[in-house]
Order: sequence, then structure tokens, then C-alpha cells
Amino acid sequence: MGRSEGEPCLQVQVSQDMEKERETLQAWKERVEHELDVVVAFWLEHSHDQEHGGFFTCLGRDGQVYDDLKYVWLQGRQVWMYCRLYRKLERFRRPELLNAAKAGGEFLLRYARVAPPAKKCAFVLTRDGRPVKVQRTIFSECFYTMAMNELWRVTGDAQYQSEAVEMMDQIVHWVREDPSGLGRPQLPGAPAAESMAVPMMLLSLVEQLGEADDELAGSYAELGDWCARRILRHVQRGGQAVLENVSEDGEGLSGCLGRHQNPGHALEAGWFLLRHAVRRGDPKLRAHVIDKFLLLPFRSGWDPDHGGLFYFQDADGLCPTQLEWAMKLWWPHSEAMIAFLMGYSESGDSALLNIFYQVAEYTFRQFRDPEYGEWFGYLNREGKIALTIKGGPFKGCFHVPRCLAMCEEMLSDLLSRLAPASAPAPALSARSPPADPARRGAE
Amino acid sequence: MGRSEGEPCLQVQVSQDMEKERETLQAWKERVEHELDVVVAFWLEHSHDQEHGGFFTCLGRDGQVYDDLKYVWLQGRQVWMYCRLYRKLERFRRPELLNAAKAGGEFLLRYARVAPPAKKCAFVLTRDGRPVKVQRTIFSECFYTMAMNELWRVTGDAQYQSEAVEMMDQIVHWVREDPSGLGRPQLPGAPAAESMAVPMMLLSLVEQLGEADDELAGSYAELGDWCARRILRHVQRGGQAVLENVSEDGEGLSGCLGRHQNPGHALEAGWFLLRHAVRRGDPKLRAHVIDKFLLLPFRSGWDPDHGGLFYFQDADGLCPTQLEWAMKLWWPHSEAMIAFLMGYSESGDSALLNIFYQVAEYTFRQFRDPEYGEWFGYLNREGKIALTIKGGPFKGCFHVPRCLAMCEEMLSDLLSRLAPASAPAPALSARSPPADPARRGAE
Repeated sequence: MGRSEGEPCLQVQVSQDMEKERETLQAWKERVEHELDVVVAFWLEHSHDQEHGGFFTCLGRDGQVYDDLKYVWLQGRQVWMYCRLYRKLERFRRPELLNAAKAGGEFLLRYARVAPPAKKCAFVLTRDGRPVKVQRTIFSECFYTMAMNELWRVTGDAQYQSEAVEMMDQIVHWVREDPSGLGRPQLPGAPAAESMAVPMMLLSLVEQLGEADDELAGSYAELGDWCARRILRHVQRGGQAVLENVSEDGEGLSGCLGRHQNPGHALEAGWFLLRHAVRRGDPKLRAHVIDKFLLLPFRSGWDPDHGGLFYFQDADGLCPTQLEWAMKLWWPHSEAMIAFLMGYSESGDSALLNIFYQVAEYTFRQFRDPEYGEWFGYLNREGKIALTIKGGPFKGCFHVPRCLAMCEEMLSDLLSRLAPASAPAPALSARSPPADPARRGAE
Repeated sequence: MGRSEGEPCLQVQVSQDMEKERETLQAWKERVEHELDVVVAFWLEHSHDQEHGGFFTCLGRDGQVYDDLKYVWLQGRQVWMYCRLYRKLERFRRPELLNAAKAGGEFLLRYARVAPPAKKCAFVLTRDGRPVKVQRTIFSECFYTMAMNELWRVTGDAQYQSEAVEMMDQIVHWVREDPSGLGRPQLPGAPAAESMAVPMMLLSLVEQLGEADDELAGSYAELGDWCARRILRHVQRGGQAVLENVSEDGEGLSGCLGRHQNPGHALEAGWFLLRHAVRRGDPKLRAHVIDKFLLLPFRSGWDPDHGGLFYFQDADGLCPTQLEWAMKLWWPHSEAMIAFLMGYSESGDSALLNIFYQVAEYTFRQFRDPEYGEWFGYLNREGKIALTIKGGPFKGCFHVPRCLAMCEEMLSDLLSRLAPASAPAPALSARSPPADPARRGAE
């Protein structure tokens, strides 16, 4: 068959493929949108403490409160999530979200810090705000900062922003200058290890505080680059593994600590870095990140027998010592959904879209609870529900709705780029700058 | 059939039952004895650090060292176990056990304490003895004490005993007078909770130090009674549940902490208390302990679907928040074997012997590794091997050989009490004082 005859045929095929892609994307957008409504409704109905402010997060399958402790990470995350939804998605611009977020923010302002004016925050508080436990890490303070910055964005109240910026200064001081305020003893046998969580968390704060704020974005630019460099040093073994822990000099460490891998965490770092590469306009970094932080952990971490991402792995293929290593947790899957959809949005590589579909199908099939709403958090290796709780000390109103809201936004964006249906799609990777959901805020 | 004709028939039946019981006990004795040989051989072959002293406990399925960190609990336990075997069982009175125990003891003497002369011990050390982590609890110090006391018993070297007694004084001071030396911050929201582990651990030290030592036994008698009273306060809910945590006043606590149950731990407490009841000559306490610490946790904790003991439970039947709650771990099963065989030995109640058989059958079938020796530690709910390691940060040379050595001794004792085969067995519960394996030491 001659070329002149083949071309119209090819055009029809391309057009049919486009239409099919549009339909699949549209179906996922609707599925994700509906799921976000159901998930938010669950937290609105069950988690608000009307008496003391803040949120109950220890919720059983049907939303029943089984413990009234308040975990500071989860308080900060829920404040952040409510504000973000309120700010970004028209249908969530409702007083009940704003008021609950403000009550959560006030609870944090009043009780999170253990010994004010010192900035160290508790890890968990009683229902009425008395500290129960303090962790010698930066994470309570980081989620406090995210909450305060986002509260400022929706309310315009400068007190929240000054809280956020001052806490950020403290965190950066602990990480880059002097960690002694965290209270960790310096023991001669403890390796000077860097957990990937620390530069990841800081990088996400850099993005949070710098959004649509040229002054702060400028003052954190060097910090953002430092975080990205630090995270990239966790690619080890000749580029064949992302390791959770490396030495202060960026070298591999011995023992279980040095071999520890967390595929979901690598994928989350992946989309943090993708956004950084986009902000920096760095396509080489983008490609590197897709290769090392998306494809590598997915290939090693996806269970070939039962599907789903393992929680932990050992870089030498040895058995991890964590009892839950082979379990399937909700959050690596929600992070993987974000990472692969973002990878596709930024690169146009349809292999990444196919992985998004694979992960999303597994995730919606295994984690959703069509009866009571929200997602189960903990499945065994075979995908059976191991814990029926919807929330607990580490699962709150955060990973699921963040994933759904971000995927909804990315899917909308992809669909708008495919329109009109009859025209060929623009090469996604040619857009400059690519769509960044965070830049399309309603502020 | 007239009574005069029935009696010889009944005698024949009794005699046949006896013979069957003897055969079953004998078969288990041989099985346990052989298994102990295999298990001890595993640790002798793979765990000795010839260079620095002490033991590797992070051992893969075949014994390969996958991490060289030294966990102080496990160092102390292995020293104790080697000495105990050396002292109690003729076939283990071998120089290689004694020498390895002494080298482990020297390692502890030299490195366990973080800042000597202060007594606080590390939780984990590098291979060459530098502290990596310190826990703000008493347990490293307790296993240190057990090791030192047992080393004194096999070597006669008074230095070990003075180490043990001085450390014991320090532990008792932390528990009963002033815990501030442990370094735990007193936070206003933290409930003044008592973990059952603390009086349990202390009670086992009272037995350890008081063995065949009237003076120390006398000076710790009041402490032993205090520990027993404290443990008994963990029976809550009108006698229907053993709870891991109660208030300082012995009342139930709210939330997950207050509802937390650990059936294997209750069973271990059960045999500690049984021995205490025997030492105290208190048959009423013995009966209470069998009811509350043996039968109750077994009935609630045994998985009716797949067999085996759940790791954690919630007293209200809610879902625990620990990811591993439904897993089957080796140590609750070895503790259950000890508890039910001891319960039978002390009471003569054959229902307890039948539970011993049920637990022992499950345990030998599911945990043993006939290929490489020692036991797997971690099965999933269905009984499939979840982790292939033989040792790790919490599994060393302790629960398995302690269980096997104690069961071997109790089975021997039961068999000797059944002899001669043709005579009726004495009522087991009528013996006074009952056989206490610890009293038959070789010292």
C-alpha cells in the first residue's frame, strides 16, 4: 500500500487512539472526583472535635472514634488538606472546611509546642492538648509549618504566615546548622546518617512557602537546590537503587540501615523532585528523576505475584527485619498514582500513563471501602485487609485526598490539552513551562 | 455388669491410659531434646564473634550474618542461655559454651554501659562496642543482670555477682523510687501507666538472683511479692482480661493504650507467677494464675481459623493499630509451651497438658526449619513464613532454647513421676513442694 493512501488511514487510527485515551482519562477523572467527594465527606462527618478543636484521626471502619489522642503530624496535615481543597477546588469552598481548618490551626497554635516560646512540637497530644510524647525529629514542626502557611493563604491572616516562616527558620537551623535542639544524644557508635525524609520534607516546604510568592521563593531557592542535591545522593549502587539512608558525605552505609529501601517513599521523592525540575526548567533533571525515582522503585517494588508495592525492601534482596515489609500500605500507592500521572503529564511518555493506570486500578480495587467510604490503610501481602481502621496514629486526612485532588487536577489539565477531540494532541514534553497545578491556585 | 467385675477392667484401662500418656510424653521429650541440640548447634556455628567477643544475632535463614550490630538485650540473653545450659544439662557442659559466654560477658562489662560508672546501658552497640542507641527503659540493664548472675554461677567469679547485685539495686531504684535516671521526660499529658513488662521482668530477676541463695532470696522476698501484686493488677474487666497497661493505681486506662493485650506476654507472666506461687507455697494463687494468665489469654488469643496465637489484641475486640497484630511470632508460642506444661506439672489438670500438645504441635509444625535449624520468627496470620531471618534485633538465642530446655526438664520430671509404668501415678497437685526445675541445678 502506497504512502499517499496510508496517511489518511494512519490519521484515522491516531484519531481513534486519541479518542480512546480521552475516554479513559475522562473516566478516571470522574472516578477520582467522585472518590474525593466521598473521602472528604468521611472526614467531615467523623473527625471534627467540636469541643476542643482539632481532629480525631483514630477512626474505625465506619468512622467511630476508637481513641481521642491527637497526633500533631495528622492535625497539621488535615488543616493543610482542608485549606488546600478550599483554595483549589471550587466545590470545596465551604465554610465547614474553613472553620474546621481554623479550629485545627488554633488548636496547634495553642498546644503543639511543648515549652513555648521554644519551637519544639509534641508528636502526640491528649484530646485537650496536653503533650503525651515528643519525637526528636523535625516532622511535627514541618506539618505545623505547612498548616500555618496554607491557613494564611486562605484567610489572609498574617499571624499564620509569621508562625510558618519562623518555624521554617527553626527547622532549617536544626537541619543545616545545629540539631542539638532536637534533643538527640550524640552517641559514638551512631553513624552520621542522612534519612531521605529530611531533605524531602524540606523540599516540600520550599515549594509550599514559595508558591506564588516571589520573595520567599527567592530566599528559599538555594535551600531548594540543596534539598534536591541531597535527595539525589540517595541514588546509589551505580544508579541502580534508591537507598533511604546514606552517610553525611553521600556514601552508602553498612548493615540493614544502609540497605533499607522504601519504594513508596522514593516515588514520593520522585514527584517532589519532578516539581522542582519543572520550577527550575531542567529537563535533564526531569528525565533523571523519572528514571531513578519513578521507574526504578516501581520495578523493584511492585509485587509480581499479588500486585501492589512492598512497604520495605533490602537493596541486596535480603529479608528486611521490619515485620510489615511485605504489606501493602495505602500511602505508597497514592504517592505512586501522583508520581506516574505527573511523570506522564510532564514527559508525554505513555509508558508512565500505563503504569498510572496499573497502580490506580490496583489501588481503587484493593483499598477503597465502598460501604463506609475512605480507604483501608493496611493490606497483607496478598491484598487482604489486615487492619480495618480508616485512620490511626499515622493515617489521617492527607495522602488519600491529596492524591485524589492532585490527580483530578492533572487529569483535567491533560483532558483540556487533548481538546478539541479531532485535532492531534500537542507534544506534552514541548510545553514550556509545563502545567503546574500549584500555579493555578484560586488565591 | 457388676462392680466387682468392672474394677479389674477399669484398672486395665487406667494402666493403658497411663502407658499412652507416658509414650506421648516420652515422644515429646525426645523431640524437644533433639530440637534443643539442633538449635544450640545453630548459634554455636553462626553467632560467635571471635574477634570482639559477644554474638552476632542478625542471622539469615542459613545463619549468614546480615548485620553486625549487637543488641544488648540479646547479648545478655545469650550469655545467660549458654551458662544456664552449661549449668543445668550435662551434655552442654562444654568449654565452647562456657568460653563464648565469658567472652560475651566481658564484652558487656566493657561496653554495655554508655557512660560508666553510671549504670545506664545502651540498647544497641556496634560490633566493636560503641553505643548506637539508648532506650529509656530498664530492659538492657535487666538482661545484663541475668547474664552476670548466671556467669557467676558457672564460674564462681565474684566480680560477676557484684555486677549483677549492683545493677539490680539500680534497677529497683529506677522502678520503685526515682525513674529520672532513665531520661524519660515527664510530660503533662502522658498517663502514669504501668507496663506489665516491668514487674514481670523484675520478678524474673528476683527468681534468678534468689536461686539457691537464701540470703538474696530473703532480701528480695518483699520485692517478689510486690512484683506479683503488681502483675496481678493487670487482670481487669471483672477478671475477664489481662491488660498490658494499667494506671499507677491499678485502674484501667482509656484508649488503645488501655485496651492493649499481648496474649504471649500474659502467658509468660503466667509461668513467672506460677513459679512465684510455688516458691510461696500458695495453691490459691496457683489456681488463680492458671485461670487468668494461662486459660484466659489462650482462649482469647488462639486464632480459631488458622491456629497460633495472635500477637496483639484489643480488649474491646476493636482492630489493634499495630500492623503486625495478627502475625504469629515464635516467642508467644514458646512461652505458651512453657506455661501449659508447667501448669500441668503443678496442677495435674490434663486439660492443660492437652493445650500444651496443641500449642507444641502448631509450633513445631510452623516455626521449625528442618533444613537449616533454629526457628523462623515471624509468620503471617495464615502461618506462612513472612520473614526468613533466624535472628534479628529482637530474636536471638533465648526464647527457643529456654523453652526447649525447660520443657525437656519438665517432661523428664513428669516421666520420672509416672514410673514405674504399672503403678498408678501420684496426684501431681499433692506434691509439696512441687518440682521446680530451677532447684535441681548442678551447682
